[in-house]
Amino acid sequence: MAPPAISADRLLLFGATGDLARRMLLPSLCALDADGLLAENLRIIGTARSEISDIEFRDMAREALETFLPAERRGGMATFLNRLSYQALDATTLDGYEALANKVGPSDNANEDGGLAIFLSTAPSLFGSTIAGLKHAGLTGDHVRIGLEKPLGTDLESSCAINDAVADAFTEDRIFRIDHYLGKETVQNLLALRFANILFEPIWNSNYIEHVQITVAETVGLEGRVAFYDDAGALRDMVQNHMLQLLALVAMEPPTSFDATAVRDEKVKVLRALRRVDASETVTGQYRAGAIDGQAVPGYDDELGKDSDTETFAAIKAHVDNWRWKGVPFYLRTGKRLPERVTEIVVRFRCVPHSIFEEMGATMQPNSLVIGIQPEENITLSLMAKVPGLGVDGVRLREVPLEITMPDAFVGQHRRIAYERLLLDLINADQTLFVRRDEVEAQWHWVDAIREVWEAADIKPKTYGSGSWGPSAAIALAERDGVSWHE
Amino acid sequence: MAPPAISADRLLLFGATGDLARRMLLPSLCALDADGLLAENLRIIGTARSEISDIEFRDMAREALETFLPAERRGGMATFLNRLSYQALDATTLDGYEALANKVGPSDNANEDGGLAIFLSTAPSLFGSTIAGLKHAGLTGDHVRIGLEKPLGTDLESSCAINDAVADAFTEDRIFRIDHYLGKETVQNLLALRFANILFEPIWNSNYIEHVQITVAETVGLEGRVAFYDDAGALRDMVQNHMLQLLALVAMEPPTSFDATAVRDEKVKVLRALRRVDASETVTGQYRAGAIDGQAVPGYDDELGKDSDTETFAAIKAHVDNWRWKGVPFYLRTGKRLPERVTEIVVRFRCVPHSIFEEMGATMQPNSLVIGIQPEENITLSLMAKVPGLGVDGVRLREVPLEITMPDAFVGQHRRIAYERLLLDLINADQTLFVRRDEVEAQWHWVDAIREVWEAADIKPKTYGSGSWGPSAAIALAERDGVSWHE
Repeated sequence: MAPPAISADRLLLFGATGDLARRMLLPSLCALDADGLLAENLRIIGTARSEISDIEFRDMAREALETFLPAERRGGMATFLNRLSYQALDATTLDGYEALANKVGPSDNANEDGGLAIFLSTAPSLFGSTIAGLKHAGLTGDHVRIGLEKPLGTDLESSCAINDAVADAFTEDRIFRIDHYLGKETVQNLLALRFANILFEPIWNSNYIEHVQITVAETVGLEGRVAFYDDAGALRDMVQNHMLQLLALVAMEPPTSFDATAVRDEKVKVLRALRRVDASETVTGQYRAGAIDGQAVPGYDDELGKDSDTETFAAIKAHVDNWRWKGVPFYLRTGKRLPERVTEIVVRFRCVPHSIFEEMGATMQPNSLVIGIQPEENITLSLMAKVPGLGVDGVRLREVPLEITMPDAFVGQHRRIAYERLLLDLINADQTLFVRRDEVEAQWHWVDAIREVWEAADIKPKTYGSGSWGPSAAIALAERDGVSWHE
Repeated sequence: MAPPAISADRLLLFGATGDLARRMLLPSLCALDADGLLAENLRIIGTARSEISDIEFRDMAREALETFLPAERRGGMATFLNRLSYQALDATTLDGYEALANKVGPSDNANEDGGLAIFLSTAPSLFGSTIAGLKHAGLTGDHVRIGLEKPLGTDLESSCAINDAVADAFTEDRIFRIDHYLGKETVQNLLALRFANILFEPIWNSNYIEHVQITVAETVGLEGRVAFYDDAGALRDMVQNHMLQLLALVAMEPPTSFDATAVRDEKVKVLRALRRVDASETVTGQYRAGAIDGQAVPGYDDELGKDSDTETFAAIKAHVDNWRWKGVPFYLRTGKRLPERVTEIVVRFRCVPHSIFEEMGATMQPNSLVIGIQPEENITLSLMAKVPGLGVDGVRLREVPLEITMPDAFVGQHRRIAYERLLLDLINADQTLFVRRDEVEAQWHWVDAIREVWEAADIKPKTYGSGSWGPSAAIALAERDGVSWHE
């Protein structure tokens, strides 16, 4: 057992001049600071290849904050900027790590008041040498934690290699694998709904739930990620991590507590219970030219400049083989160049077993719970209620959508960036919302099997027009079961 | 079996110049007419002791409509008033009934296109002679239905006597016993919620419901009903009818259809399953002088002008002895001169069996469903949700009240008088929302046993100050079980 974790008084950001740092990490930290959630003595040290000074780094940070953080959330930006310093580093050689360690200060002293939190926001190819450098410079002691951004490998084998490299320097309880979806309010609210109310758990099973849908739809195409994306594809880019994490949160048994071990024990059980998928239960696609929001956009092959068999769309009918979920399909769907940007979970309940209202001409809709994650964060429970009035020819019913997270239920709370939650937990050493090694590996295990099936059956992505909801076969995948994708 | 019911083309109102007719019945009929819900050929014949002409009756009706019906609901009042005619009658002798029958027109012809609906809004002491008169004049044929207003007796025996008298002239399928609570939107909506959603029925039992509260609180005192009320008391005035009907709707098993027989079969099963109440499970009270809304009001004895043992308040802990409800108390409470006018049902669910959030400092409230019947009609489901934000020292939860019947869910629907529904059903011969003889008798059976217990134990009402929630013993009745009355 490691000694009890202590809060970090230093945060070391690798990739501190990069896109994620500028758009998300620095704005999140500044917003936390504005809300008084960072300890007064917390220092933030940035590092990257660029040879810039502390001053230049702060200038870059200020510009990033002014661009990406709403003014009302910036607070006294000067106080925040004063926390920042910078150390240039070539992460690929051991040479610079001692200078970095000097800048950061001692990290391996059990009498130390504060720990060190490291956040690796760099290319995976740098992970190995970075870990080696940190170890070389003594920046891997008991009070050092490391946060890792995806992608962690491209299959089980490469993921294990990365995890082994990190494990060589850090124990598992000090490794914080980030899936930023877990930092979303509504994702955490899903746990509150399920486990803080008596209402849902008794019906949260195959007796009462007909199916679950998880959609992660993007309107964008390749953007700048050409090389990475063409090697990865939708399955590895979205399904393997985000979507399986959402599925695990929907499907998990009640944990015995809200701590990291209990929650992750339950999630990994779900991931391991995922049934091996048949070829007939998957559909892949690749977008062609089309229009998004009335704007013409090129096809994937045009953007890439060559032919490719990479899928930009995947739909999968998944099954969780346990008592609770036997017979309940989990329909997963993700793609680029779809008609709208939306991430949501739809839990569709069964119809009532016997309707006493249908004979009177009332139309019935099964109940549903829709958890919106992007672009809006909201949770809507849809119930049937009587339409006021006399309905001479019967009782009229209507679906009433109840917004559980409606803005006015929580007045005065501003919307936070998912990274705020995650950075704060990294600083405070709470692993609950981070992904454990066994989860990542269970995810890869299931995803690798899908890729094997595709290869064995020589399945190539079908084309779909940009601005459509993917190949028609994806519609058919659900409709065969009498299920329509939620739109 | 009677021939299939046909809609009435005539409605005969006894007590047509009385308070209920002026405040409720005529306004309801006019509002139905304004909404096009009355057949074009429907005629409405009023009768009462006063010797007035058709014209004078219409004038009285116009005045009542202008006083008690909002202008926007009156429609073309002239069209409605043209439906009205009037026949004076001394209901206590047979003499006038033939003239009444002539005015009403033939009623016992199976080839007739329309039936006759009669509504008795008169003192119960007139029921016997009225029925005899109707029979004498041939106004009790197969196509004649009769609607009866409460009170139907003062105990099982007198109730049976009235029911026998009516049964002598009308078959049960033509007797419409009115409990106007059943005409309330939210009362009907309770059935829609329970049986049109998969969500509630699996948790609608003693495993998940801790207790149910039914409150009918009035701020008024005796008003004009001195003689009647002092003979009746709260138990017979409120509990025996309205409150037991509400209890039956909450507790009933799912009916096989929404028709009158199926629904009432299930209600009567509940009423018959009511456990005989112990003296220790009831509290009675009588109000003394006090203040309502800052206004001084006299005590019951002062209003009455003499001492009395009549209860103006009753609280009862009831039990339904069947599989579904074993161990779930139904707390009933009604009284006059209470702090506010409110009729509501509170279904309180159990706490979650194991809270993973409490150890983090989150306060948990059990879920509840509150069905407001008066003065506002609304249904609120209360859930726990996460408060947005970071909660550094744990997850913060909050109770979120979801208004299932919020006004904006049903825009453009105006609020109706409960009698609109009931009069329309009487005209159209739908008995679903009327009380069957066996229900009334089961209600009296249970209520009579309570009065016997009071008598045997010589229980007299405790005094309570006007403007309080009844005797403190009523608070204790619930608090002994760890339950607080909903306020």
